[in-house]
Amino acid sequence: MLEINKIAFIGSGNVATHMAQAFFKAGIHIIGFYGRNQQSTQELALKYHAEWGAISDIKYTVLDLLIISVPDHAIEEVLKELTTCPILITHTSGSLSMEVLQIKGDRFGVCYPLQTFSKEKEVDFSKIPMMLEATREKDLEALMNLAKKISPKVYKLNSPQRKKIHIAAVFAANFSNYLYHIAEDLLLKNDIPFEVIQPLIEETSAKIKSLSPYEAQTGPAHRNDQETIDAHIKDLEDIPEYQEIYKLLSQRIKESRK
Amino acid sequence: MLEINKIAFIGSGNVATHMAQAFFKAGIHIIGFYGRNQQSTQELALKYHAEWGAISDIKYTVLDLLIISVPDHAIEEVLKELTTCPILITHTSGSLSMEVLQIKGDRFGVCYPLQTFSKEKEVDFSKIPMMLEATREKDLEALMNLAKKISPKVYKLNSPQRKKIHIAAVFAANFSNYLYHIAEDLLLKNDIPFEVIQPLIEETSAKIKSLSPYEAQTGPAHRNDQETIDAHIKDLEDIPEYQEIYKLLSQRIKESRK
Repeated sequence: MLEINKIAFIGSGNVATHMAQAFFKAGIHIIGFYGRNQQSTQELALKYHAEWGAISDIKYTVLDLLIISVPDHAIEEVLKELTTCPILITHTSGSLSMEVLQIKGDRFGVCYPLQTFSKEKEVDFSKIPMMLEATREKDLEALMNLAKKISPKVYKLNSPQRKKIHIAAVFAANFSNYLYHIAEDLLLKNDIPFEVIQPLIEETSAKIKSLSPYEAQTGPAHRNDQETIDAHIKDLEDIPEYQEIYKLLSQRIKESRK
Repeated sequence: MLEINKIAFIGSGNVATHMAQAFFKAGIHIIGFYGRNQQSTQELALKYHAEWGAISDIKYTVLDLLIISVPDHAIEEVLKELTTCPILITHTSGSLSMEVLQIKGDRFGVCYPLQTFSKEKEVDFSKIPMMLEATREKDLEALMNLAKKISPKVYKLNSPQRKKIHIAAVFAANFSNYLYHIAEDLLLKNDIPFEVIQPLIEETSAKIKSLSPYEAQTGPAHRNDQETIDAHIKDLEDIPEYQEIYKLLSQRIKESRK
């Protein structure tokens, strides 16, 4: 059976940083970090006893897997610099189809960790779902076995499904975080510390482990409490950009009541 | 010093249910549950060895505090039924000013637990911030001491501040939960279990304990990745109500980048 033991990364951003750490801890041999950002590739390489350099320095013969972990818009440039790739190559993007890698060989796939990464904050990979895809069945099995070394939550998904997950993730994570930002802003403007609302945020996210979000919905719009909704809208008059969001989401929640 | 040992509730909804449980566990004597819903007031009363009945049955002389915990729109009706109240009386609303209670006596206040309650789910009151207000300093101190028996997070706030907190809570909790609902809907429509996204939701809410929401912001809009944004908007063409939310929140996140 095909086994993946030696890997390398193109890229040194948040995803590469956290993934490399998890693979390293799991005993996977990280051969190198390649890309244009010399400082961060070097930093990662020194941390994991790997080499670093430009994309042209990659030695395919010693690798089982090459992981391209760069922003979506940069992947085209990276692929131009790659020679035809004789080994398994994957990207880590939620949005890009697997086929963008097709031009560089016939063994390609995706290894998408569904999580929000910040350089400053440690993550526990054992809680991160890994979304895998590959052209060849044997490569997919090998990726599954590799991913299982860092997470018990491993899923085979095709590109359209992955794209839907990415959109769902934007709603559930990126947009939710922006709503936290609005809440913080409203509190700080009224001399109230943000911490007062943190337990509520924690409970709201914990609730949906035992109830569906539909069952867990509360609040003035869900109760169709128009008096409170109107009072809040009036209160937000000075901040029309928040007022607009309040109106739209309240309207949608009211409509979604069964 | 004024001490509150004997309390009663008007109302038997989520807030009264969870608050009564916490006070009971803390050794506070719950005298009774009053209101129109005979079944649920009786259920609570039997659980906490209290009496139940109509509002006209309340015996003020044996009470230190009467907590009115009913929906905002119902409070006016409740107040009509109450005789002039010779003891301390509080409501538990995030939105209503303290002064709505004024007509019933001169000792009144607010005891607002900032949390989302569902009947089916236990809550840990020790993590719930209690927002307190009262007309008399001595009553406020007594409420503080009472609240501290169930939560270490006790805040003195005036009515305008409490209203702002309530609006912030709608954004951070009610609206976030609705975004989880959208995410779930998108996933289920594509045969993907909701559980794949739960770790992401958990991490997103945990992140803001160590980073501000502004620092924690990620995603296509934050990266100004217009290609991905456009692809997502196109993908949501069949669900215009989600597409509209996607557009508005992405636009706001882009504008909020410094």
